[in-house]
Amino acid sequence: MKTRIYDMTTGKLLFTPGPLTTSNTVKAAMLHDAGSRDREFLETVREIRQRLLGLGGARPPGQGGEFECVLMQGSGTFAIESVVSSAIPRGGKLLVLVNGAYGRRIARMARVHGIETETLEAPENLRILPEAVAARLAAERGFTHVAVVHCETTTGILNPIEAIGAVVERAGAAYIVDAMSSFGAIPVDLAAARVDFLISSANKCIEGVPGFGFVLARRARLLEAEGLARTLSLDLHAQWAGLEADGQFRFTPPTHALLAFQQALLELEAEGGVGGRATRYAANHAALMAGMAALGFQAYLAPELQSYIITAFRYPEHTAFCFEDFYARLSELGFVIYPGKLTEEACFRIGTIGRLFPPDIEALLAAMRRVLEAMD
Amino acid sequence: MKTRIYDMTTGKLLFTPGPLTTSNTVKAAMLHDAGSRDREFLETVREIRQRLLGLGGARPPGQGGEFECVLMQGSGTFAIESVVSSAIPRGGKLLVLVNGAYGRRIARMARVHGIETETLEAPENLRILPEAVAARLAAERGFTHVAVVHCETTTGILNPIEAIGAVVERAGAAYIVDAMSSFGAIPVDLAAARVDFLISSANKCIEGVPGFGFVLARRARLLEAEGLARTLSLDLHAQWAGLEADGQFRFTPPTHALLAFQQALLELEAEGGVGGRATRYAANHAALMAGMAALGFQAYLAPELQSYIITAFRYPEHTAFCFEDFYARLSELGFVIYPGKLTEEACFRIGTIGRLFPPDIEALLAAMRRVLEAMD
Repeated sequence: MKTRIYDMTTGKLLFTPGPLTTSNTVKAAMLHDAGSRDREFLETVREIRQRLLGLGGARPPGQGGEFECVLMQGSGTFAIESVVSSAIPRGGKLLVLVNGAYGRRIARMARVHGIETETLEAPENLRILPEAVAARLAAERGFTHVAVVHCETTTGILNPIEAIGAVVERAGAAYIVDAMSSFGAIPVDLAAARVDFLISSANKCIEGVPGFGFVLARRARLLEAEGLARTLSLDLHAQWAGLEADGQFRFTPPTHALLAFQQALLELEAEGGVGGRATRYAANHAALMAGMAALGFQAYLAPELQSYIITAFRYPEHTAFCFEDFYARLSELGFVIYPGKLTEEACFRIGTIGRLFPPDIEALLAAMRRVLEAMD
Repeated sequence: MKTRIYDMTTGKLLFTPGPLTTSNTVKAAMLHDAGSRDREFLETVREIRQRLLGLGGARPPGQGGEFECVLMQGSGTFAIESVVSSAIPRGGKLLVLVNGAYGRRIARMARVHGIETETLEAPENLRILPEAVAARLAAERGFTHVAVVHCETTTGILNPIEAIGAVVERAGAAYIVDAMSSFGAIPVDLAAARVDFLISSANKCIEGVPGFGFVLARRARLLEAEGLARTLSLDLHAQWAGLEADGQFRFTPPTHALLAFQQALLELEAEGGVGGRATRYAANHAALMAGMAALGFQAYLAPELQSYIITAFRYPEHTAFCFEDFYARLSELGFVIYPGKLTEEACFRIGTIGRLFPPDIEALLAAMRRVLEAMD
């Protein structure tokens, strides 16, 4: 049992929603101390911002593009809060579409800032329906902003952001999409989905390391946010204006994480971009689903609602299953899985994103089989 | 001129206030993907928090210590904002002691949050005088909090935080110390200085990489901050409560930066702790002052006010000195210096912190001599 399958010098394999397993070349990019105001580093920042816009299907601002890219220090939640606390004016009203913990977090965050906030809730095992959003926006007037989570990491369910975007646009509201765990691996066309603010993070499907998030914002909406921010650090417009003025962050950037991210973007491109990455993650997910079924585990979601990002599995019913023991034994073997976050059902989660390939999934499944045999 | 003195594979030498030059072993600690909820990583976080308290002269909380350590994602400014926006209640009133840009930033930040804020301003080339603070607190009642910058990076001046702390305590106010660029290299005794909240950052004198800041907080004051925060991400009490509950960050931590920081703390200890590091930085500074005087540069501050952290130098008067050209030529050679931030005088700055030794200072001085000859 104690034999480790993977070389521990570079860490265990992470089957989580992030921080993820990254390539050794991404990590090696951090073996360098960049001056945060030095020319080479500013060029890196510029290139990162431009490539991120491209991943969202947007042209660069100089070439007629309607979107801008803002990088924000901190975790992905910080970047979401920078949007919520900067873009929604006093007197604004937010509708948050909720079918999991991350939607609920957006509503909680908005209320901390005193923003009038309502939720439209769906069960955690069902998608947000565009018709339901339309009905709510018709029944209750005055919503200036609507927020939704693309891939709700609570379950791995995928919400239909394009169809919801059309509804939000018809209602004349601004549209905020939390694409934290989907961007880079599930195609998103910012214009087609009528997105005004899309938020994601360095340490998700682009396979960088944690340290900052980013916002792809429709320029017209970003300009409206000038002077509205309720904080200094998370002021989205000021952060953008600073990056535009001299290419620099207002406050110390995580230079090493940015160098790693530049390398991660090159590796994403080498893999064939979002399409290539989607293919690998889908293969990871297919291998996982087949293997977990063979082990007797039941997925929480119906297959047609399940993304290839992360999957929730019910605890087995017939045994005295102890997740903490299961987790610890797998971790000993070099495989890190993730606890559940559902409100009502006992589940654990397995992510299939990051620098993982189908043979890694097979190795995880083999380890699970051994652990289950040892536990029973 | 194009011959580089240093091996560019690990970066130029950074003579800045941070991000700094770090050791190769600190950077190599990042060649590892840690699971943010895995046991080994939580042990790293626990050890970091305990060691930071020790650097402030505080005993661990379990052993009768009065202070707690909270880590906060983002740059140092985020950590300061977490204190200002979490610890000062509605109805509170803040006095900020200002003799440079970083003091002004604290006042600006507090006003963004609608906190009643006054400043006590001193010229940028003079220390904040404890007597002046005492007089202001006697003349104007109602200040609940007083904030000061320990080493004002604008000039490198050192404010007398112990003497000011005694004044603040007598007035019954809470005391916030921004020790961003001093902590780890200038001895601070939290209890002796009557500090309630001290803030610093990973990428300063402890010689880690950027990605998070930290707050050393008097537990009684921290407990008073429960429920007061004006943001979700920067909620200091909630962040602490989360770390205490299960050892985890509430939101994704910069795992690689934390691994680097653990290594940096070990290297600080190996150097003899704060005293050992102070000795090296003081030697760096002495070498710099002698060499810059020989080159004809004049320091902005009087010698007795100058710290060994960072030094501002006046532009030479007798030549058509162009800082941008000077900077670019030095950068070409592998030496990154820093622009000025003074309101009235044209200065540039040279930091003497980070993984730099007197021979590095000599190399910088030699490069400056060559650049000045080429420019004139």
